[in-house]
Amino acid sequence: FRKKNLSTEELIQGILNGDIATLARAITLVESTNTEHFQKSNDIINQCLPHSGRSIRIGITGVPGVGKSTFIETFGSFLTALGKKVAVLAVDPSSTISKGSILGDKTRMQELVKDKNAYIRPSPTGHSMGGVARKTRETIILCEAAGFDTILVETVGVGQSETAVHGMVDFFLLLKLAGAGDELQGIKRGIMEMADAIVINKADGNNIERANLAKVEFTKALHLFPAKENGWTPKILSCSAIQKTGISEIWEVIKAYTDDKPGQEGIIAKRRTQNKFWLLQTIEDQLKQQFYENKNIKNQLDQMIKLVVDGKISPFNAAEKLLSLAKGT
Amino acid sequence: FRKKNLSTEELIQGILNGDIATLARAITLVESTNTEHFQKSNDIINQCLPHSGRSIRIGITGVPGVGKSTFIETFGSFLTALGKKVAVLAVDPSSTISKGSILGDKTRMQELVKDKNAYIRPSPTGHSMGGVARKTRETIILCEAAGFDTILVETVGVGQSETAVHGMVDFFLLLKLAGAGDELQGIKRGIMEMADAIVINKADGNNIERANLAKVEFTKALHLFPAKENGWTPKILSCSAIQKTGISEIWEVIKAYTDDKPGQEGIIAKRRTQNKFWLLQTIEDQLKQQFYENKNIKNQLDQMIKLVVDGKISPFNAAEKLLSLAKGT
Repeated sequence: FRKKNLSTEELIQGILNGDIATLARAITLVESTNTEHFQKSNDIINQCLPHSGRSIRIGITGVPGVGKSTFIETFGSFLTALGKKVAVLAVDPSSTISKGSILGDKTRMQELVKDKNAYIRPSPTGHSMGGVARKTRETIILCEAAGFDTILVETVGVGQSETAVHGMVDFFLLLKLAGAGDELQGIKRGIMEMADAIVINKADGNNIERANLAKVEFTKALHLFPAKENGWTPKILSCSAIQKTGISEIWEVIKAYTDDKPGQEGIIAKRRTQNKFWLLQTIEDQLKQQFYENKNIKNQLDQMIKLVVDGKISPFNAAEKLLSLAKGT
Repeated sequence: FRKKNLSTEELIQGILNGDIATLARAITLVESTNTEHFQKSNDIINQCLPHSGRSIRIGITGVPGVGKSTFIETFGSFLTALGKKVAVLAVDPSSTISKGSILGDKTRMQELVKDKNAYIRPSPTGHSMGGVARKTRETIILCEAAGFDTILVETVGVGQSETAVHGMVDFFLLLKLAGAGDELQGIKRGIMEMADAIVINKADGNNIERANLAKVEFTKALHLFPAKENGWTPKILSCSAIQKTGISEIWEVIKAYTDDKPGQEGIIAKRRTQNKFWLLQTIEDQLKQQFYENKNIKNQLDQMIKLVVDGKISPFNAAEKLLSLAKGT
């Protein structure tokens, strides 16, 4: 028996009671593109807000093949064994198209999916990148209100989604493999500088030596990167998610970051800045969306882009023309 | 005797004849915030467009104290001695406030300022960062139409202006000093990854050894950075702008970048992408400006930001409220 519609109050109460089934239904409501659900989900989020925030939010990124799923399985199980309640979310804009979300295949996390102190939620689909990011951020609020104290947000190695995830977490962890191929090809520009820790995965078997070498190299190169605004020096670690080695060391680093007095204050300040960022970001996303969905703009934009690309009209002149076209409706 | 008003046609003809006084007056018109000048400057730019583009556009950045002015003086004189016509422009958003443009003090480039094959123009003032960038980009068009074949765009070590300059040049050069202090403090995140060449300046006297050491370090660290989309591997060089050493080597690297067949095609493709970027960027800047200058928004924004920062209302909910407020006028 599944009750067809829960009221806003029932949903909120269920979340605050830590009921996973209700949490899941509320997240589905938040993710819905149905305009009727909009007010309801807004009410839920605003009422959950005072109960949110008491967690550590950790972003995890790395190119496909680096072993993200295995890492999250191992790391998540390690955390629940410590008594933590772990929510695993994903930001995967490609899932909109391919429907092949990185977390869709829960079979890749067989342990964690059975763990009653873990909740795994695939990336929302049917939204633009901005929409996916917004929905995930709102989902964090709901998970925290439901009592999850550790939020892992997984993302794929695509520049845009990394920036979004970096803007919603306290600590950003970059998984890498030893060996030049990965450094040269996989990681998009700027990602390495976002990382609070770089973890070299698959440091096992024949790979141990290479992983140690990579650790030394990265550590040496660290001073070439600009310092973080909060004074944190990114840490370089290695682990084997499969052999479950090096995992507690990673947790120690994150704890040092968050338990630290300046760290804690840093997190509060960071979250305030993030809140403001999301307000302005949403406004700007919506302004753009309204513009580009304008009928006149849709008719003229491609042609104007072509003129500009070919150097037939100045970009600024073309922009003026399009802007007055948008106002004309 | 100075003619008070030149017609659009006279200005264009003067530019195409390479008359510097006319070029300067046209740039002043482009920089003007007077709405009456707007149509005139648009006409001039669009008519200069077909005569523009035949140049190499070089962005130069580095923290204060790295010796940018001396470098541009030496590098610019080196280029005019080769028969080049060199325009030196600046993007300095701070000049709006302090009026202390990095190029305002032309006495710092005593040689170049007397050189008839060089034209030095300080950063436009009285504009937002977006405005400064736009005006500089339009000034490049006019300088090229006036026959300048080498455009140097100087910028200060501020993240936003670097990104803007990177978006308007073919080749981006980062000046650095040897020694850890600079690496740790000066350069904003992401800037190093934008560079097509990193030049360690002040490699003279007691500094030579340190500069060479820094060169080795940077070269080693290069493979830790993601590869450029066009396949170019950033080069690490050293020079002494004061002693005029290492300058021709820098020019050789830029020539290798531009004379190279894939390089040339890369520049054409890059400029097309840049044109499209500026069209969309201008549209988005204007949309934001219209929003934030709305009276209702001006009244409510600060209060809404405070609620969001304090976690009293969700950023997305606040954005909705502000967006409908903006529409209400």
